[in-house]
Amino acid sequence: MSQPLHLSSAANPRIRGLRDLRRRRARDTAGVTLVEGYEELDLALAAGVAPRELYLCEELMADPAAQQGVVERAVERGAQLVTTTRAVFEKAAYREGPDGFLAVVPAPGVALADLPAPEGPALYLVAEHLEKPGNLGAILRTADAVGAHAVIAADPLTDWGNPNVVRGSKGTVFSVSVAAAPTAEVLAFLAERGVSVLATTPHTERLHTEVDCTGPVAVAVGAEKTGLTEELLAAGERVRIPMVGRVNSLNVATSAAIVLFEVVRQRSVQDFPVAVGT
Amino acid sequence: MSQPLHLSSAANPRIRGLRDLRRRRARDTAGVTLVEGYEELDLALAAGVAPRELYLCEELMADPAAQQGVVERAVERGAQLVTTTRAVFEKAAYREGPDGFLAVVPAPGVALADLPAPEGPALYLVAEHLEKPGNLGAILRTADAVGAHAVIAADPLTDWGNPNVVRGSKGTVFSVSVAAAPTAEVLAFLAERGVSVLATTPHTERLHTEVDCTGPVAVAVGAEKTGLTEELLAAGERVRIPMVGRVNSLNVATSAAIVLFEVVRQRSVQDFPVAVGT
Repeated sequence: MSQPLHLSSAANPRIRGLRDLRRRRARDTAGVTLVEGYEELDLALAAGVAPRELYLCEELMADPAAQQGVVERAVERGAQLVTTTRAVFEKAAYREGPDGFLAVVPAPGVALADLPAPEGPALYLVAEHLEKPGNLGAILRTADAVGAHAVIAADPLTDWGNPNVVRGSKGTVFSVSVAAAPTAEVLAFLAERGVSVLATTPHTERLHTEVDCTGPVAVAVGAEKTGLTEELLAAGERVRIPMVGRVNSLNVATSAAIVLFEVVRQRSVQDFPVAVGT
Repeated sequence: MSQPLHLSSAANPRIRGLRDLRRRRARDTAGVTLVEGYEELDLALAAGVAPRELYLCEELMADPAAQQGVVERAVERGAQLVTTTRAVFEKAAYREGPDGFLAVVPAPGVALADLPAPEGPALYLVAEHLEKPGNLGAILRTADAVGAHAVIAADPLTDWGNPNVVRGSKGTVFSVSVAAAPTAEVLAFLAERGVSVLATTPHTERLHTEVDCTGPVAVAVGAEKTGLTEELLAAGERVRIPMVGRVNSLNVATSAAIVLFEVVRQRSVQDFPVAVGT
């Protein structure tokens, strides 16, 4: 590989540019996001990401020799290497205790129209008005596990490129198809593809286990405090997760997982009859 | 109510005592923990908690008049009121942007032997070696939703009184029965009560939906990186949550919820036959 660029001044515009990427507007404008940390970068590379730039600080690395493979994979995919001093890296890094790896990668996400058409019955997850990066990350991990065809943010308050979403998703934000659009556009997209919406809400008698999920479905979850909007509820079939404790005690990512895995269960029962012990 | 104590010096030993309670050893010794924030305290009170001390700073409160009800309920249950200056309160508070409410409450948790005997088939959740307070909090919320008879921490790395568990649980750490013990003791307790262990692991062919969960069961989950110990796996029936994506992509609280809600589904199908759409 060619000699990497070396930065020893935190005043370098590249470092200011990296810091700018912590703001959503800068990410949206540049169409990129940050992946920080060896493990996160390893997961992103495994999901097929092609980093544009890779900032390295050997002094901060746990084991530079053992971690060299990740550097090589990034370079093979076209990443420009930039080495920095420790002081400069710590200025660029957004987390406490950086480990010497920070990459600039294309922002995840495609337009709704560019989501691939699923083979077999569609399974989407629609997250409306969600804000907490940790919840979005956990939802992506679940979507990866069930093989969801896409996770669609409706009227999102947080972008898919938010570095804390990237981190919380353990790389799955790059392996699962993601998109974002206003609720009305999401509903139009689903209607056009013939996908039924399962709108989770405590305000219905119908349980999520009482609905046939073997056809094309989109499971919709809303913010924990406010729930799904009327617009979305009106477009879908309302389903409730049974709860004997306090109303609405479930975490939103947990709710999404429970309904998604009920879809998986129903489809597996249909495809491969199994004893379910009842 | 009698005149509250007023503190205007951060050097007061009570304030040092509150700060000490951030450390597990101090919580264990004193048998108490902290509930910080109006909303959290409201939830804890709703779960029946009797605070011993309530520290208040009116200047920091969002709406002292509207929030007075919580103060009155705490006092009715025997809480000593302590008002402080803003500077003192900010010194005592452990979160950023405190809202003027901080209570000292009895630490949650009982000995295994003191867990109430369930009516009907037992449903326990065993969390082995878990560390992240956010995951433990989410597991408690799910346990509340399914009406689990207890959540038992086996060889825990984090105590139930950890203020971030209290916060993440949204008060459910006080409404769900919780206990903690070494794994061997937990297994002995379950065996004695005739409870089968469903040990979640990716290393089995058997799906969680293929096991009869209508009898007394304890769902066991381990740390995301290491999984359940051999000791626990050997004592239980191994079950796998089906995943088409990366192995082990699920968050541990999500995994717990998926299996717990399968138990609920099986039991509801048995008790009240419903169409499940398959």
